[in-house]
Amino acid sequence: MAKEKKVEQITDMEVDFGQWFTDVCTKAQLIDYSSIKGVFIYRPYGYAIWENIQAIMDKEFKKQGVENVYMPLLIPESLLQKEKDHVEGFAPECAWVTMGGGEKLEERYAIRPTSETLFCEHWANVLQTHRQLPMKYNQWCSVLRWEKTSRPFLRHREFLWQEGHTIHATAEEARDFTETMLNVYADFCENVLAMPVTRGQKTDKEKFNGAEATYTIECMMHDRKALQAGTSHYFGDGFAKAFGIEFTDKNNQKVPPHETSWGVSTRLIGGIIMTHGDNNGLVLPPKIAPIQAVILPIAQHKPGVLEGAEAIKNRLVEAGFRVKLDDSDNSMGWKCAEYEMKGVPLRVECGPRDLENGQVVLVRRNDGEKTVVALEDLEKAVAEQLELVHQGMFARAKKNLDDHIYEAHSLEEAKELQEKNGGFIKTMWCGELECELKMKEVAGMSSRCMPFAQENLGDVCPICGKRAKKMILWGVAY
Amino acid sequence: MAKEKKVEQITDMEVDFGQWFTDVCTKAQLIDYSSIKGVFIYRPYGYAIWENIQAIMDKEFKKQGVENVYMPLLIPESLLQKEKDHVEGFAPECAWVTMGGGEKLEERYAIRPTSETLFCEHWANVLQTHRQLPMKYNQWCSVLRWEKTSRPFLRHREFLWQEGHTIHATAEEARDFTETMLNVYADFCENVLAMPVTRGQKTDKEKFNGAEATYTIECMMHDRKALQAGTSHYFGDGFAKAFGIEFTDKNNQKVPPHETSWGVSTRLIGGIIMTHGDNNGLVLPPKIAPIQAVILPIAQHKPGVLEGAEAIKNRLVEAGFRVKLDDSDNSMGWKCAEYEMKGVPLRVECGPRDLENGQVVLVRRNDGEKTVVALEDLEKAVAEQLELVHQGMFARAKKNLDDHIYEAHSLEEAKELQEKNGGFIKTMWCGELECELKMKEVAGMSSRCMPFAQENLGDVCPICGKRAKKMILWGVAY
Repeated sequence: MAKEKKVEQITDMEVDFGQWFTDVCTKAQLIDYSSIKGVFIYRPYGYAIWENIQAIMDKEFKKQGVENVYMPLLIPESLLQKEKDHVEGFAPECAWVTMGGGEKLEERYAIRPTSETLFCEHWANVLQTHRQLPMKYNQWCSVLRWEKTSRPFLRHREFLWQEGHTIHATAEEARDFTETMLNVYADFCENVLAMPVTRGQKTDKEKFNGAEATYTIECMMHDRKALQAGTSHYFGDGFAKAFGIEFTDKNNQKVPPHETSWGVSTRLIGGIIMTHGDNNGLVLPPKIAPIQAVILPIAQHKPGVLEGAEAIKNRLVEAGFRVKLDDSDNSMGWKCAEYEMKGVPLRVECGPRDLENGQVVLVRRNDGEKTVVALEDLEKAVAEQLELVHQGMFARAKKNLDDHIYEAHSLEEAKELQEKNGGFIKTMWCGELECELKMKEVAGMSSRCMPFAQENLGDVCPICGKRAKKMILWGVAY
Repeated sequence: MAKEKKVEQITDMEVDFGQWFTDVCTKAQLIDYSSIKGVFIYRPYGYAIWENIQAIMDKEFKKQGVENVYMPLLIPESLLQKEKDHVEGFAPECAWVTMGGGEKLEERYAIRPTSETLFCEHWANVLQTHRQLPMKYNQWCSVLRWEKTSRPFLRHREFLWQEGHTIHATAEEARDFTETMLNVYADFCENVLAMPVTRGQKTDKEKFNGAEATYTIECMMHDRKALQAGTSHYFGDGFAKAFGIEFTDKNNQKVPPHETSWGVSTRLIGGIIMTHGDNNGLVLPPKIAPIQAVILPIAQHKPGVLEGAEAIKNRLVEAGFRVKLDDSDNSMGWKCAEYEMKGVPLRVECGPRDLENGQVVLVRRNDGEKTVVALEDLEKAVAEQLELVHQGMFARAKKNLDDHIYEAHSLEEAKELQEKNGGFIKTMWCGELECELKMKEVAGMSSRCMPFAQENLGDVCPICGKRAKKMILWGVAY
């Protein structure tokens, strides 16, 4: 019977990590496929995760003086072409509008793959004096990149993100702000999503098209592959000059401002799944979980049980938790499996005997730990358990990261370590593109970042033997 | 000198209401023009109004059990064509994507003008049993309609909106929900935006393409033209049948669900401007004003004034108000004009003598009324004054509406009343399209709605003389 069906099976992650990931995305009802290849539907449960991410992150942005705006969806081709490196990077994967209102357009319009050009055009219109600076703008929107391959959350042709864009009077201030926003992202990942990050700078090969410098946070997934979780770009005054943006400075000179941009996307949800998930499904960080605790009454037909469960729900709602009471007639086994699949951080079990004894049982999703708590301590206990879930998730992910960073002193060693263990391989590096390409060719790894926390592993680049300039992390990335 | 410049002049509304409106939109920095005709940039101050509208409305939706989702931006042409009336209405004003990733697409994709077809396709995929019903979904997004004319907030080729879409097990439940959402909109307009509304049903001519019935809220602007502020549509099972959506009902029969959709857009901001604004600029309803009170220190160079102003600001922030302290070196006259232009509902003036006497002066934006209040009552007084601003704004708008609804008993009388007074003209109506077209042709008015609050003005249609079925409102609309 439909109401008693078992929760649908998902593939074990050890058997096929990719299939496990797709199973979790669809069976936890995060996404659905649309009829256009590579374009996905964000279903209520998946979108609610994004809404919770947005709410917390938007507050952090506003603390940094950032204001939200909305720029157009469409970019005239002539506007996109104003900055050479930028258009070279993005034009090949644009979707183009060529018809409007039944007529062929005189100029074709790209659906935004990113909006630097639109912000620049607006600033060229409105910026006059240093008294208007800095301008710190952000928008929450979707962008399109017509890529050949796709995967839920990790690579969509259309995906949801935020893109921040700022202009500043000086290069120093802009560079500082680029780092500030990277740190906002890093702190968010660690403190909110329980995802430990490595902070660093991208190589010239991997930086954003048109940027002078790109900073990144790199995370390690459970299968030890790398995920670039957020980036922050410093543009210098290159875009400003290309778009004719100028302001009158304190000395009454006309000068271009210095610019930054920074973004994270629903890719973060892919990161959450692959960092924390297990063979029973999703494991959601409590701070962004749409349901933080699910209340499951046991033997709910017995007198007083449903009333007791309802009272517990009301107290937790009142205390500001996001909770759900499931009093459907599905079996307890079905319910437990269902909310495990959906990654609900805490299960609150209350049966007739529990309620009689003035207690409930709290069960943590991440490690299955059960705690019996007195009803009078309910709110405090739930808050504590949610905090323990967060800490447990972070500790497990941190151990996975720390245990799988390996040091290599030759190309061959790097290759062997990656093949054997996966993870991040750290080496010294001369800074040359040639060596970066060689690593990719021989060991299948791209450079992830030059970590801010540098170590001296030696004096020479293990690839070419020339003098080393930086320590660098390599990995296989999503 | 830039810092002492007068606030830029706006056209008087009595001289040219259209120019006054455009001046307010640009000079209060709500919007900017983009390089694409009819596509506007929502600047921080304009977007902040929308964010406040979203926050309050989204809570109301969630109280009705609505969940947010995100559907794709692009609609394959074949999908758009599945419902005949719908495609006939929207296809002529679609923008079409024909190229992606450097290649011509096999099928062209419309940028969504509205998303009924996408929701239907998804539901056809996921709906199985009556136990999943109702599904109440909403999305906040932008849509494109490639129209010939444009005006800030009122008619954009790209505009921000929300679109709610629901499916229900029975026609009755769906019809009830259509009305529920119309009432959510109506209450929001009146209680949050201080905009009185007339609730009613659209004629067949004016209803949404593909709907069985469209309900509407109609507002009267200060120039006595009508603005359709929100609509709610009942679809019956027409879309469900066209898209093959079915579920197994309680009798184990496969049947189609019944559907609704409902939407409001940033047009509401146009309504706010034209309902409440005056010759000094915007007048914003306190509940959605980005700045609810601006604190202006007088003689701020004198000892203690800035500290006093800062303390007032902190107390008001602490109490949950959205406030700004302007301690720039612009003149008091400039500041007053600037925040009047921006429609800030309350000005808090504090000079050395005020602070000495333990008082401040509160000045209301809507009627200029000044109130001296004791500092110890600050939070309470600000809350009261904001409430009075709301009430004053609503009363003024309500009077404008009530004073300009005229009863007519012939086509000629309707024409004369509209020419002389503007406003809404109410008549009886036979229900025939022919008479509706005649009213448009002769008196330049479209039907606004058949109000829920019907009156009997007579037995015959004043246009054709046949038996009347309904009272109807006519007007000249934005």
